[in-house]
Amino acid sequence: MNYKMIGWIHALILSVAAVFMLPALLICLFDGDSAATRAFLYTVMLTAAVAAALLLLCRGASKSFSAREGLLCVSSCWLVVSILGCLPFVFSGAIPSFIDALFETVSGFTTTGASILSDVEALPRGLLYWRSFSHWLGGMGILVFLLAIAPISGRNDGSTMHLLRAESPGPNVGKLVPRMKQTAKILYLLYILLTLLNIVFLLLGGMPLFDSVCTAFGTAGTGGFGIKNDSIAGYSPYLQNVCTVFMLLFGVNFNCYYLLLLRRFRNVLKDEELRLYIFTAVAGVALVALNLRGVYATSGETVRHAAFQVSSIMTTTGFSTVNFDLWPSFSKAILLCLMVTGACAGSTGGGFKCGRIVLLFKALRRNINELIRPRRVQVVHQNGLPIDEKVLKNTYAYLSAYVGIVIISFLIVSLDGFSMTSNFSAVLACFNNIGPGLDAVGPACNYAGYGVISKLVLIIDMLAGRLEIFPILIWLSKGMWKRQ
Amino acid sequence: MNYKMIGWIHALILSVAAVFMLPALLICLFDGDSAATRAFLYTVMLTAAVAAALLLLCRGASKSFSAREGLLCVSSCWLVVSILGCLPFVFSGAIPSFIDALFETVSGFTTTGASILSDVEALPRGLLYWRSFSHWLGGMGILVFLLAIAPISGRNDGSTMHLLRAESPGPNVGKLVPRMKQTAKILYLLYILLTLLNIVFLLLGGMPLFDSVCTAFGTAGTGGFGIKNDSIAGYSPYLQNVCTVFMLLFGVNFNCYYLLLLRRFRNVLKDEELRLYIFTAVAGVALVALNLRGVYATSGETVRHAAFQVSSIMTTTGFSTVNFDLWPSFSKAILLCLMVTGACAGSTGGGFKCGRIVLLFKALRRNINELIRPRRVQVVHQNGLPIDEKVLKNTYAYLSAYVGIVIISFLIVSLDGFSMTSNFSAVLACFNNIGPGLDAVGPACNYAGYGVISKLVLIIDMLAGRLEIFPILIWLSKGMWKRQ
Repeated sequence: MNYKMIGWIHALILSVAAVFMLPALLICLFDGDSAATRAFLYTVMLTAAVAAALLLLCRGASKSFSAREGLLCVSSCWLVVSILGCLPFVFSGAIPSFIDALFETVSGFTTTGASILSDVEALPRGLLYWRSFSHWLGGMGILVFLLAIAPISGRNDGSTMHLLRAESPGPNVGKLVPRMKQTAKILYLLYILLTLLNIVFLLLGGMPLFDSVCTAFGTAGTGGFGIKNDSIAGYSPYLQNVCTVFMLLFGVNFNCYYLLLLRRFRNVLKDEELRLYIFTAVAGVALVALNLRGVYATSGETVRHAAFQVSSIMTTTGFSTVNFDLWPSFSKAILLCLMVTGACAGSTGGGFKCGRIVLLFKALRRNINELIRPRRVQVVHQNGLPIDEKVLKNTYAYLSAYVGIVIISFLIVSLDGFSMTSNFSAVLACFNNIGPGLDAVGPACNYAGYGVISKLVLIIDMLAGRLEIFPILIWLSKGMWKRQ
Repeated sequence: MNYKMIGWIHALILSVAAVFMLPALLICLFDGDSAATRAFLYTVMLTAAVAAALLLLCRGASKSFSAREGLLCVSSCWLVVSILGCLPFVFSGAIPSFIDALFETVSGFTTTGASILSDVEALPRGLLYWRSFSHWLGGMGILVFLLAIAPISGRNDGSTMHLLRAESPGPNVGKLVPRMKQTAKILYLLYILLTLLNIVFLLLGGMPLFDSVCTAFGTAGTGGFGIKNDSIAGYSPYLQNVCTVFMLLFGVNFNCYYLLLLRRFRNVLKDEELRLYIFTAVAGVALVALNLRGVYATSGETVRHAAFQVSSIMTTTGFSTVNFDLWPSFSKAILLCLMVTGACAGSTGGGFKCGRIVLLFKALRRNINELIRPRRVQVVHQNGLPIDEKVLKNTYAYLSAYVGIVIISFLIVSLDGFSMTSNFSAVLACFNNIGPGLDAVGPACNYAGYGVISKLVLIIDMLAGRLEIFPILIWLSKGMWKRQ
């Protein structure tokens, strides 16, 4: 195991994190909040010190990187950044319990948006900013950001590919352009542009600048931390609709935006994942709106809330404009299913991903055809191209790991005695990086009631969901720790 | 499509069904229940008439049989037998609604045990017998029975293999002996022997003969229809324990019993599916018993109820001695998970099957190892033998179809407005052929409250669960209906 290289990447990641804490520190300073300022100051110093120590220790590491080192490095980086990132909450006294602060921070970086806070409006603005910013950074990926800016790539494109692959969502991570570093740069540029556009549209609706920036961070990362106790409910219908549109936009595979820039419209229109994504959104909104007839004053209001909530859940953002836990069973069932389907691969959204559903559906259809005509060999295609059997095998393995994790997590979390619906939706909402679930973890409630063990399980679920399971699962593998 | 052959097999199946209705007819006659006697008489005559007509129409059919004809034939046979088998309930007025009667009968043949009746003790004994007998016949399989007795096999062993394969549960259906017909005979002989043994043990505990026979039918088929309103709760602890033991015995792969008869003990001991099955049962009982501390008067009673309920749910029988819907969340969560895992392949139990879980776990482990060391090719083994990649692929496809069916059924059933827990557990309990679920479909309640559409969905789920999905799914495939 190339521990030196892993340490070196950790050092770079921590340097980036320390720099990104500075705006939060400035906000605290500006607001004259001395406790929060001190908390950020200590954290930045500690983070920088650890980074410096690691840089010294891991000088001159060989830059070649195997797949298993890539997987290990990614999950370890995420954990370390979360541990250091939660310290401002602890030091400032805003969240005195370390495990609660870790839960909140992992929820931030993994773009889950599940909170243990009942009164977010009581937080200092610097902490609110840091919470929302963690969504933005975690959405596109911390290591992807590093790849885009740091001198990490060099000649070893294969090595960095392992890192990008381990952090990027989807069954079939592709490069936009031949060089990894360029791909990472293009992704972040698109991401920054779309985020800015989101901020502008929010400002046009009269939302204050601070609110706009934080809300756009939460939307862009499909995270869902609000800066108000009632999430987005208090904002105007225009602002809610802006959020709906941008949540949906950030749930689209970023490759599609790159193809649009290249004017390859036909490729985008023919993308089967995008088609399923749009179909699911439209069908979901229609069914929920039909089911909610008579619940709200006007049909316009019904459609607005249905569209907002369906988009929020299926893109795995988790904002809310109403307490959907009070909706009828069918609407709640639809939301529960959308929690699982999730957004597109290669987007900032979580969940199982529409692309995997397309693949599994096609593989199942092939299987049935093979049952009917055993002698005919068939190849599964996606977007007109044959799919490598290895990708299918990995998708299948992903499904079984996914189901296994849901079942085991559900069992452990049940020990706390909440209702079945609370426990099941808590696991789905954390594992798929959504945030609010139903019943005791509904949009009007929070995760504070769960015990330490449940919170640890949910923390692991959030990380496993964001990093797509395998970078977390490998820690349990014997083969991982054997010499090669 | 060889429709003549399919019709001929339907004729044979219906003849068998008509003969099997005679004991029920005799019981009604003996009890002097004229309405029930007439109901059975009409049904037997109708069934015999349809069988005779089909025999005449389909004389001289070519006996060769493709895989798709086998799949189609099996699912169609099950549906036709259920439709005719439900008529005694309708004709006698015991269950006036056809859809309810069909639900009850499909629930019987598929060994689900989900009921729409609130007062089973009000049923005539002939109908109670028929209800329980449907479990027994459906447990080992109607077509397997036909293979064992009818002149259907002949020289065409490959053709009959398609039938057995389509009806027998498990990822990897094997023959015990080279000839299919012999395999079917051995299976039924073992089945009859174990059932008789069960009856004897029940009689020794003082259970009346009629109760013993019906209870043994429900146990042997892992069905779960009781003849008392409180299921097994009213019987003595000894009788409850007898049920616990026999439920577990009928959840074991019958191949194991055959191997025991051949004195190949080592093969049985090393069977990985059996090991997982035993481990799951022991762990389930231990965890539930621990969780139930203090709920019952003595620890003996606690263990008895825990063991009974865990065995009942994991073998997908569905008997109950207590209202487990009132148990704490953790125990209910365990039961919900056991609903999914199910019994062993090649047993009369339903569910996902322990054997498939073993396979998926090993495939997942291989996937992780391949991630860590991409260049090493690895083969998955079970019981020391390499597993064909095709079996793995089919198991994966089974998992994705399984998850898809659960999600779609859950959505549709939610339209009736019951709680999330009711709907989710109703789908799991029907699809895995268990019977009682939680909340509104808990052991103290029944399925009568669901609407017609939900009942139809649950009927399809029961059939899909018993026939292991593909014989039902192929009806939706375009390729099925094209000329070859």
